[in-house]
Amino acid sequence: MQNLRERMMTVAGTTPAGSRSSLRERKKLATRRALRQAAIDLAAEHGFAHVTVEDIAQAADVSVRTFFNYFPSKEAALFGADPDEAAALPGRVACEAPGEPVLHAVRSVLAGGVRARADELAELWLNQGKVLRTDPHLRAAQAAQSAHLERALADGIAERLGTDPEQDPYPGLLAAVAAGVFRSSLSFWAASGGTVPPDQVIDLAFQALADGLPERCALREFTASTAARE
Amino acid sequence: MQNLRERMMTVAGTTPAGSRSSLRERKKLATRRALRQAAIDLAAEHGFAHVTVEDIAQAADVSVRTFFNYFPSKEAALFGADPDEAAALPGRVACEAPGEPVLHAVRSVLAGGVRARADELAELWLNQGKVLRTDPHLRAAQAAQSAHLERALADGIAERLGTDPEQDPYPGLLAAVAAGVFRSSLSFWAASGGTVPPDQVIDLAFQALADGLPERCALREFTASTAARE
Repeated sequence: MQNLRERMMTVAGTTPAGSRSSLRERKKLATRRALRQAAIDLAAEHGFAHVTVEDIAQAADVSVRTFFNYFPSKEAALFGADPDEAAALPGRVACEAPGEPVLHAVRSVLAGGVRARADELAELWLNQGKVLRTDPHLRAAQAAQSAHLERALADGIAERLGTDPEQDPYPGLLAAVAAGVFRSSLSFWAASGGTVPPDQVIDLAFQALADGLPERCALREFTASTAARE
Repeated sequence: MQNLRERMMTVAGTTPAGSRSSLRERKKLATRRALRQAAIDLAAEHGFAHVTVEDIAQAADVSVRTFFNYFPSKEAALFGADPDEAAALPGRVACEAPGEPVLHAVRSVLAGGVRARADELAELWLNQGKVLRTDPHLRAAQAAQSAHLERALADGIAERLGTDPEQDPYPGLLAAVAAGVFRSSLSFWAASGGTVPPDQVIDLAFQALADGLPERCALREFTASTAARE
């Protein structure tokens, strides 16, 4: 196996979030990604219960102590997003597609983000899905991660609308709903084998949302068997 | 303070879920509720970091060992639903309002459930909201609970539609979205002081969802300041 951290360094240097960051920051991001990749790969291969923090650290070529500088537990390593991405999300939601409704902006940011990173991360997402289906109790760890995404979305939605989320229920509502659409779409995509572009599933799910979640919607023509045929 | 378990025994005996259960089951339910109530009350009063499992067990008049028969951690005690309720949810979603769209059925079950228990549980929900706003890291524990609700909803939606959630993305999507609506509505209701019926906020949020989440919706006329004036 090629050194995981070195591979991640290359990737971290070429992503938009990393392009203007210092070498030190890129090294940290590469280590974080290597740990996440190792955690997911090992869990998908051996089952999460049989993977230790020691295994993950070793596969990512760092010490156990270093592991705990990045993640508080092996559960947390499975689903953590890059900190830069989370930090950039509110600004993206606020600025995307000016003049369009905020639901459109959220849809565009989330589907676009997945589209931009699908080549690099599709295998990681597929293995995350596999691990979740094998160990359903890990949905709690995934839900915790989803709560972070939701908070970042709510901040961006409130900023775009120029509203106060303490006074206005809309940013919290749309953020909770959008995080649910995102998570359930990626889960379904992974469960159905990941044979079509994941952003397509996310986009169809957001279309169903914009239409008021009718029981007949284009998303449902996209069944698991359709995906397997493509 | 009146003995918490005795109070909960009375309540457990009168709720629909408990009405046909054995004395032993009602006792267990009463203990679970007493522990949850004690955990929330203590956390709301002293801050979650300052509350121990020992404190919670003592307030609920049980041993620490008994506490751990019900909950794996003090975080888990804060947001756990009654097991009976969770078990009954899929059947309710499947049978509610026959002939109506499944979104309508989900809305009716969730808003109706809150309406039926508001007198008994409003204070608990308000204190849960207070604890969450004070200790934002507890959102992870709440998200884990929300994941349980979501799974139960997905089962009920799939049953009602006669569809396979492995093949059809709709049950997972609607469940994730509905759980998000439910959680964000109750949070907003609690943050705005809980001065209007909580089921009203949930129902308006579901109306917004059915309308495709337009930026202008009746839910937003219901701001925190409106609630404070009523």
